[in-house]
Amino acid sequence: MDIRGLRPVGISMGCPVGIGPEIVCRYFSLDIERPPAVVLGDEAVMAGVCARLGLDLKIVPWRPGQQEGPKILPFLNPGPRLDPDGLRWGRPTPETGRAMVAWIREGLRLIGQGRLSALATGPITKTGLRMAGFSWPGHTEMLAEWTGSRRFRMMMSGERLKVVLVTIHEPLSRVPSLLSRERIRDCLAMTGHSLVQDFGIARPRIAVAGLNPHAGEGGMFGAEEEELILPALTTYRGPGTVSGPWPPDTVFHRAARGGFDAVVAMYHDQGLIPFKLLHFRDGVNVTLGLPLVRTSVDHGTGYDIAGQGLADPASLAAAVETAARIVINRRRNRNAQGAADRL
Amino acid sequence: MDIRGLRPVGISMGCPVGIGPEIVCRYFSLDIERPPAVVLGDEAVMAGVCARLGLDLKIVPWRPGQQEGPKILPFLNPGPRLDPDGLRWGRPTPETGRAMVAWIREGLRLIGQGRLSALATGPITKTGLRMAGFSWPGHTEMLAEWTGSRRFRMMMSGERLKVVLVTIHEPLSRVPSLLSRERIRDCLAMTGHSLVQDFGIARPRIAVAGLNPHAGEGGMFGAEEEELILPALTTYRGPGTVSGPWPPDTVFHRAARGGFDAVVAMYHDQGLIPFKLLHFRDGVNVTLGLPLVRTSVDHGTGYDIAGQGLADPASLAAAVETAARIVINRRRNRNAQGAADRL
Repeated sequence: MDIRGLRPVGISMGCPVGIGPEIVCRYFSLDIERPPAVVLGDEAVMAGVCARLGLDLKIVPWRPGQQEGPKILPFLNPGPRLDPDGLRWGRPTPETGRAMVAWIREGLRLIGQGRLSALATGPITKTGLRMAGFSWPGHTEMLAEWTGSRRFRMMMSGERLKVVLVTIHEPLSRVPSLLSRERIRDCLAMTGHSLVQDFGIARPRIAVAGLNPHAGEGGMFGAEEEELILPALTTYRGPGTVSGPWPPDTVFHRAARGGFDAVVAMYHDQGLIPFKLLHFRDGVNVTLGLPLVRTSVDHGTGYDIAGQGLADPASLAAAVETAARIVINRRRNRNAQGAADRL
Repeated sequence: MDIRGLRPVGISMGCPVGIGPEIVCRYFSLDIERPPAVVLGDEAVMAGVCARLGLDLKIVPWRPGQQEGPKILPFLNPGPRLDPDGLRWGRPTPETGRAMVAWIREGLRLIGQGRLSALATGPITKTGLRMAGFSWPGHTEMLAEWTGSRRFRMMMSGERLKVVLVTIHEPLSRVPSLLSRERIRDCLAMTGHSLVQDFGIARPRIAVAGLNPHAGEGGMFGAEEEELILPALTTYRGPGTVSGPWPPDTVFHRAARGGFDAVVAMYHDQGLIPFKLLHFRDGVNVTLGLPLVRTSVDHGTGYDIAGQGLADPASLAAAVETAARIVINRRRNRNAQGAADRL
């Protein structure tokens, strides 16, 4: 990865009483090559984690252009500061909720100013948001509101499999009625666009999963394939190729073996079951459709294991790495486009 | 596997114009240890496949107690014989449909007489059945009718994962209304029973998947977990332990890592997506609830590749092996029970 000239990726620490502080500190302790990165979070909470886990890390205020190095964790904290002694692992409060939102907000502001290149978010909870008086169910809706975005989708990205979801957090019984040609078509367009601009795949091969067993087997087990999915994919006009609807029980295996660059899944578990089976540790959540590059860990706050030294920074590492790659790919594509325009 | 005294497993050849004849011939050509087995199928069709693929196999009529050996394929064919010159790959006819049903029927008859120990079925199609005037959708319903069985379930079995399905070939939109406490409870009981008697697991750990994303997340994404699944599993009285409802997107990963002996899945793709990702080649379908041991390949007739020499016998090999193991485990359990009864 050519990180020359790359501005830092902002990493929001997530809920202060979850595993966010631990995975952030562990990530900066790893002896790996890292893209430039800055933590948006509370320095006292992170210092407490380092002391507890015996991590030898210098937590220093970030200044633009400052030297990075091993064993250094640069942070930004717009405040208010938290009092670590007043916090209990797994117990969010109105203060922790407000703080975690302030860090995300600051990340967005600095991206807007061109001082950060992307946002990689640590885990937060609805409970924490609610306690602080916010009604967003999660990051995606929060960022969508702040940036005035209406069309957004969740992509789960890993080395072996990329999955984009047409519907997300919905009861299974509502899924069939939520599917529409427009919604599927929209998802296909955003998937194709992202594979080209974010992942540098010039001619992406997109597979669409059916909704029903055996993709309906000619209408015997459901009609959505014929009525909704097929019409949506035959009118695809984006880059690369789209095929399907494929039987859901084999399409992910084919994709994981290299047959497709991404699979568009009709509902949460259709996409997440195979994704987590292949990328349990190192999966990344990428939000498509926002005017900024945003990735996220693909796990929760882990309140049950917070403070115990058991958290794994692999997903955060993958989220930061993926964010940096997307920024670089977009820059390369813009440059290529600029060069083409000048010809 | 202690195969002493084990009567042969009957292997039905499946649809004569699919990949059934090829996988059967390839299976008997493999240089592996095999439990005793007999093919119920057409000798002329199999001879044609051997000639075409250059397989050096002697196809000989089976006699009880006869010596088995490498490069020998023992067969039984109650007739009528097929004319290979009149068949075309991928094109079932009324004759091929009648023949494939006659082989399965003969297998059942010989199991009833104690001459075969189990049935491992090759792939058939609904189309083939319909052409021959039968209305069963597949083997399971056919065998259930012949044996007067009303409660049966599909288990997918592999080294890393075992999955039992509460609903099978249903449109996704019908799944929520098909679930009931009784149906789930029944499935749990059959799963526990099978893990003990068929797979020799004395205290099975059964996981139950939720229906909705995050297993409903406390009712936010659906109520079936609280209303149907939890009541069904808390009243489980079978062997071992039952836990859940677990978030569907992580429970299969936990099971595959050894955390559970089997997962009860609410619908076809919930169970089959992870199963096929882990056991694409060597998965076995085991029918629970029949008065005979029946396993099956977990793939279809492969009409698109039939006759091309591309078929893989791995799933058939696993199906025959699993059938033999189940017979042996049941015998051992009966003997242990008998010994206990005599004390």
